[in-house]
Amino acid sequence: MAVVDELRMRLRAEQVVTDDATREAYAHDDAEWAPYAPPAAVVFAESLDDVVATVEVANATGTPIVPRGAGTGLSGGANAIAGCILLSLERMTRIVEVDVDERFAVVEAGVLNDDLRRHVATHGLWYPPDPASQAISTIGGNVATNAGGICCVKYGVTTDYVLGLTVVLADGRVARIGRATAKGVTGYDLTSLIVGSEGTLAIVVEARVKLLPLAGREDRVVVGTFSALSDAGLAVASIARDGIVPAALELVDRTCLAAVNAWQGLGIPDDAAAMLLVRVDEVGQAGEELAERVAAHLAAANASGIERASDPDEIDRLFQARRLAYPALERLGPVLTEDICVPRMQVPAMLARIEAIAAEADVTIANIAHAGDGNLHPLIVVAADDADARARAKVAFDRIVDECQDLGGTATGEHGVGLLKLPAAAAEITGVELDLHVAVKHAFDPHGLLNPGKAFPSAGLTGGIGQVIDLSGSHASPAAPAHPKTGH
Amino acid sequence: MAVVDELRMRLRAEQVVTDDATREAYAHDDAEWAPYAPPAAVVFAESLDDVVATVEVANATGTPIVPRGAGTGLSGGANAIAGCILLSLERMTRIVEVDVDERFAVVEAGVLNDDLRRHVATHGLWYPPDPASQAISTIGGNVATNAGGICCVKYGVTTDYVLGLTVVLADGRVARIGRATAKGVTGYDLTSLIVGSEGTLAIVVEARVKLLPLAGREDRVVVGTFSALSDAGLAVASIARDGIVPAALELVDRTCLAAVNAWQGLGIPDDAAAMLLVRVDEVGQAGEELAERVAAHLAAANASGIERASDPDEIDRLFQARRLAYPALERLGPVLTEDICVPRMQVPAMLARIEAIAAEADVTIANIAHAGDGNLHPLIVVAADDADARARAKVAFDRIVDECQDLGGTATGEHGVGLLKLPAAAAEITGVELDLHVAVKHAFDPHGLLNPGKAFPSAGLTGGIGQVIDLSGSHASPAAPAHPKTGH
Repeated sequence: MAVVDELRMRLRAEQVVTDDATREAYAHDDAEWAPYAPPAAVVFAESLDDVVATVEVANATGTPIVPRGAGTGLSGGANAIAGCILLSLERMTRIVEVDVDERFAVVEAGVLNDDLRRHVATHGLWYPPDPASQAISTIGGNVATNAGGICCVKYGVTTDYVLGLTVVLADGRVARIGRATAKGVTGYDLTSLIVGSEGTLAIVVEARVKLLPLAGREDRVVVGTFSALSDAGLAVASIARDGIVPAALELVDRTCLAAVNAWQGLGIPDDAAAMLLVRVDEVGQAGEELAERVAAHLAAANASGIERASDPDEIDRLFQARRLAYPALERLGPVLTEDICVPRMQVPAMLARIEAIAAEADVTIANIAHAGDGNLHPLIVVAADDADARARAKVAFDRIVDECQDLGGTATGEHGVGLLKLPAAAAEITGVELDLHVAVKHAFDPHGLLNPGKAFPSAGLTGGIGQVIDLSGSHASPAAPAHPKTGH
Repeated sequence: MAVVDELRMRLRAEQVVTDDATREAYAHDDAEWAPYAPPAAVVFAESLDDVVATVEVANATGTPIVPRGAGTGLSGGANAIAGCILLSLERMTRIVEVDVDERFAVVEAGVLNDDLRRHVATHGLWYPPDPASQAISTIGGNVATNAGGICCVKYGVTTDYVLGLTVVLADGRVARIGRATAKGVTGYDLTSLIVGSEGTLAIVVEARVKLLPLAGREDRVVVGTFSALSDAGLAVASIARDGIVPAALELVDRTCLAAVNAWQGLGIPDDAAAMLLVRVDEVGQAGEELAERVAAHLAAANASGIERASDPDEIDRLFQARRLAYPALERLGPVLTEDICVPRMQVPAMLARIEAIAAEADVTIANIAHAGDGNLHPLIVVAADDADARARAKVAFDRIVDECQDLGGTATGEHGVGLLKLPAAAAEITGVELDLHVAVKHAFDPHGLLNPGKAFPSAGLTGGIGQVIDLSGSHASPAAPAHPKTGH
């Protein structure tokens, strides 16, 4: 195959892998429900030059190129297209620089989120974005999807921490964009445009990320259980109206709680409709008072079993129901993960609609939610090897997005459009806005080589669950859903 | 003139103004040092439809269109181009919506920053971006320039608060971009791309801005005076290394202090090389302790006359030297305002270089600086009606940017490129990055009608001080510098 020969001329043999097992292993990220097909080759880049070489070969041979970090994505943004070059950046794990005084780090795309976090902590610094995949996902992937997490309700998402990028453009040229200073408005903000563009505009090779001081925060957690979902909603609203911005505001719904309880016997009341977990991180007496106020809001909204903790082990214990929700559900069967975002006051209404959808579609749907942001992760549990259940899960998945959009929400809060949310995104990106997307894509990638068909609904490709994506004549075989390695 | 006739067919007579006085008054913003020329007409839009009509006329007649908010810009981004349509949005002052629970406001482009701030405060909410022009500048202008301010060292700049925009594109179509939810990654982040693009990609008609709770902050200010500039630099560094992120960290240099002292007799020591003003806003004991730590850092760096305040009137008094710096300098002559940003640890080095430049060029240069961000505003004072002093000021202006870039800084921290910083931006936006700018501009505005020649160094136009910008055969007459209405 010409493209493989060309790649082998430019890279070391062991960087260009074409055996079936590797091509299959790298054919998809954690969104196996989305379509995928085997790549022509998997390329393991070890340097900026390797990425340039790979893109040049893609250009010379007209081959689509799909970049990939650790493959923990949940929307299929890194799913391979038949015959593509699957470009893995996982070997580019160098932390190039940490500037303590200017509070930034420069890292290669393949550095794991947790590795960056641990490394900068030794310098007294903190990298806030904390997707649930942080132990196994890369900064490059986080940047490509504009990953969120738990603390973003107070500290923002990935894009809020990206100062600059080194990217390889579709024609193989290297662009160094963004800034090294705390502020700067020279030229267009191309950095923010590329963050979250899922590898469709450029390939992120290196990122300069902003850091915060590690000191100056003290975690306190307040947890309460509600027998009515609407009461949990009231608590969220009254915390917000009191001017409190928590460092985490998580909701675990009745289905999750039941699954966790059945597995671990945490003693959660059987009639619990929801649990709220609230973290504040103000220091000293101010933090103490805030935690008290949060507890009072929970109590006023009829929460029971309110507990507070400031000791790390105790905090850990209180977060158990949240942390164990995903594995508890996985015991029941493969999980299809939704990622919708509604106005935060609509969280109870959305959860009620999801309950109705679950009943109608006859599927189990559990919910964990970044309630402070209105970002819900309905988790659709499907019995293994049950084609009918799978079909019903697909119906539920699509209906959840419809209801979310009906409530003024958006199809994806933090996982990205990838392929899985293409049909959903098509309802939001229409007309003039779609034209702008096409124009921007064309400005960056006129020949459509970079991760084509992802991120926004362009002509000629459809995503969603189990549909076929085919750019070169061969067909994807939608696989049975398997266990994603992570939740949210 | 065809364009004027066309405009009069689409708008009310009093919205299309062509008298000489108005055309002259609207020919430039506060950057009179930058080139400008009279527009063919000044259009006062009162609605989205008016903006659409104006852009359609611009298209039909091939006339460039320069959008303008309140005209407080300091880089000439709103300076007119000979024969253009100068589109003022100052009459679009409607606060469309404040959603208290979701914490956002939707405002028309002409709403003044302070009016938004005051209005949302009645709902217990806060709009943080605080450019010094906040009393007189518009949200539309703030968005177009990605305005900064004093509190951005902790709270970020305008772009961090823009959730979505309603814009009119170059072809007259309306695009509603961004999101209404706290999070959301559906599609490209076109919002951040347009923020700071100075009206060259689209005309911002309405903005949805994120708000914070008004409660939960208590201001405490610590002020100290240094007899050596390097000591002030040490204090900034040691505050940062201690993990303190102040809500303001301002520096006033010896020239400013002398001017203020001569005018108001504040009793600042004659040997004062710099004053640091530090604000923290943590609540209660935590705030008290932080203020103490800040004071200790100032003392350790040999500050004298350290004062602390938490009472609003006392805070006001301590900020006098900062607040009065600009008017004190204007007493000495017209002021040419620089806006550079260096790595924050380079602030003392940069100030030293500025002193050298002032001596060499034989001009007075005073400095106020957002020291916590490395964003300096060298203020070049020029004797009125002195052509030679003006020429020397221009030399100093350009050399400051050169030295800033040499220290790893950028040409503009918060004022924008406009026309004044085009030559400076040309040193930073080159090669591949310049091609990307051109490609993005072309994707949005293929016929180059929207504020052509601004924001980045495109072919065929030059800005800087007193150069001629000419798109239609007539010539700009660089005026004598006059008093800008505001500082920074």
